[in-house]
Amino acid sequence: MAAVRAYLDYNASAPLLAAAREAVVAALDVAANPSSVHGEGRAARRVIEDARRQVAALVNAQPQHVVFTSGATEAATTLLVPDWQMGKAPLRMGRLYVSTADHPCLLGGGRFPADQVVRIGVDRDGLLDLDELAVALAAHDKGAGLALVAVHAANNETGVVQPLEEIASVVKAAGGVLVLDAVQAAGRIPLDMSKPCADYLILSAHKMGGPKGVGAIVAAADLMMPRPLVTGGGQEKGHRGGTENLAGIAGLGAAAAAALEGLASIAGVRALRDRFEAVVLELVPDALIFGRAAPRLANTSFFAIPGLKAETAQIAFDLAGVALSAGSACSSGKVGASHVLTAMGFDEIQGALRVSIGQATDTHDLELFRSALAGIASRRSGGSRAA
Amino acid sequence: MAAVRAYLDYNASAPLLAAAREAVVAALDVAANPSSVHGEGRAARRVIEDARRQVAALVNAQPQHVVFTSGATEAATTLLVPDWQMGKAPLRMGRLYVSTADHPCLLGGGRFPADQVVRIGVDRDGLLDLDELAVALAAHDKGAGLALVAVHAANNETGVVQPLEEIASVVKAAGGVLVLDAVQAAGRIPLDMSKPCADYLILSAHKMGGPKGVGAIVAAADLMMPRPLVTGGGQEKGHRGGTENLAGIAGLGAAAAAALEGLASIAGVRALRDRFEAVVLELVPDALIFGRAAPRLANTSFFAIPGLKAETAQIAFDLAGVALSAGSACSSGKVGASHVLTAMGFDEIQGALRVSIGQATDTHDLELFRSALAGIASRRSGGSRAA
Repeated sequence: MAAVRAYLDYNASAPLLAAAREAVVAALDVAANPSSVHGEGRAARRVIEDARRQVAALVNAQPQHVVFTSGATEAATTLLVPDWQMGKAPLRMGRLYVSTADHPCLLGGGRFPADQVVRIGVDRDGLLDLDELAVALAAHDKGAGLALVAVHAANNETGVVQPLEEIASVVKAAGGVLVLDAVQAAGRIPLDMSKPCADYLILSAHKMGGPKGVGAIVAAADLMMPRPLVTGGGQEKGHRGGTENLAGIAGLGAAAAAALEGLASIAGVRALRDRFEAVVLELVPDALIFGRAAPRLANTSFFAIPGLKAETAQIAFDLAGVALSAGSACSSGKVGASHVLTAMGFDEIQGALRVSIGQATDTHDLELFRSALAGIASRRSGGSRAA
Repeated sequence: MAAVRAYLDYNASAPLLAAAREAVVAALDVAANPSSVHGEGRAARRVIEDARRQVAALVNAQPQHVVFTSGATEAATTLLVPDWQMGKAPLRMGRLYVSTADHPCLLGGGRFPADQVVRIGVDRDGLLDLDELAVALAAHDKGAGLALVAVHAANNETGVVQPLEEIASVVKAAGGVLVLDAVQAAGRIPLDMSKPCADYLILSAHKMGGPKGVGAIVAAADLMMPRPLVTGGGQEKGHRGGTENLAGIAGLGAAAAAALEGLASIAGVRALRDRFEAVVLELVPDALIFGRAAPRLANTSFFAIPGLKAETAQIAFDLAGVALSAGSACSSGKVGASHVLTAMGFDEIQGALRVSIGQATDTHDLELFRSALAGIASRRSGGSRAA
């Protein structure tokens, strides 16, 4: 049966993969508390430790350096804090450096006072200004603590992939600590914690086909860790209290395993995404596709249709059976320009539309998108410019 | 088929109820982000708002005063903080008052400095010392901020139910703010936020037959709220950032609905629990059952077998096919006396065993427990005292 609707909003939340669904459902029937010492409790513990291995494998890290959280936002709030500890000794992060195109959960600065957050710009392609970062880090006052740098690996709106090795190298040279928001990157580009990559990665299950409400911090080593955000029980080796989201964690593990496997066939996703962009340019020749000159995720396209407000277009697509986004989901309820586009220097753009797809997206979705866009483009102010 | 094993550890984590399982599984297939404005996103939003109504109904509160969290520990860490806000204006809690028999996630004091946490004692039945609380609150320095009182409604180990109306009345008279940890109480005793009860309740899904990793704060009114713990997106009206655990929240809602319904048949649970205690006293006449003189939850029994270490007995029960707990799950990995028993004045007791049951517990479970206990009691140091 052909899909009645096309879901093209994977970067907001990807549909649950079959393997993740199976893992979640199986874990639902594990009754016990993973901290209980009886047989039932030990079975629950095994579910968590299996998932920990799967998550570690996705980014080539050590399982014992994975800390499960309730999602990427909690992971970011946990990591972005001045108070850290080296083993049991306190350790101070003096300042936080973020990118102007970061997701709000980094851009907000976590638990840093606003005057201790430095924003590093991006260029018109959305790529971090490495010189600006190097200059800022060179001026960092180490007396106040280490420099904590938190940037996205790939942008949630444009899909632009940052120069990860270069960023890691600049941060390392300056003696800083690097947190990489890999929420959109995981499963779409290879990530390898065994190489110079980042000191900490942030992952989210639901962006890669796992359930919503679970994520992880993956550390390259666990000697330095932030003071825990959620305290209580001694779960997650004291790094995150609270009875574990067993089913969610099982789903994250399965999604991570599928994401790792999916990397082999990511070229197919890219080819389909390129066909979406070909349709956009065919029907709207003056469309602007952002970040196209930069390396981008295979699954994401962010474009503006001149003469059409993104929010209006988004609603029209929805009515035509196509779910896509005008900006990112967590702020899409709010009216306004995309802060990512503003950061890239496109102040005049009234928002843009994001198509984000996955392995399950097919040509039926593409055709639904085409017919919806054809109708929408023809109604643009100024008449059809595609004619 | 008779159960091969008896699961008697509901207070650590209750098996998932069929209704909660259904709700979780249905919500797994809702692909979208609840913050997305397209049809798929609005469907996800409805799942959350339906659950919010179900949770509110359990405690007779307003749905808009329910804030979903990743569990009770996060809820406690969120609430137990000096920095609050009244609307947008900052508000200070000067000191935190907890009970010595509280769960570690309250006892730890959340984000209060240790020297601002005052511990109020309990009597030999586990009941909060109301006079001590009143005296402490009378001495509270209001210049430093309001008095925040956080106590459990029912104890996780003994099941002892606190004098809730009296506590609320003492706190109110002193102008304090009352947080009630209702994790074990919810669905086992009636809770009514429309009467003088508490300013804030903490709930956990998995203690009442929902999935692990989801909980809620329920406020009597939402004018005063703690500064958010998890920041990022504007979810939960700004009180808790991060994409919502959609399936978990759906499961919490269904569990809350079932818990409310289950209150009508709680007497059956109590009768079965009493039969477990009759078996204990029959096979171990010198057994000590804690909190028996106080009002207790219908489902909980906490007892010590003289001459037998609780941990040893717990392992023996496990080997005999009975899952029960020696103390609470989150600390049961650690060796040591129960802090609850110490608080009650039983310093000499080497831990105790907790049987905690639910609506699904039956006489098969009771018989498995009886035969396991018979074997264990006969091996006590000093020979069988039950003979």
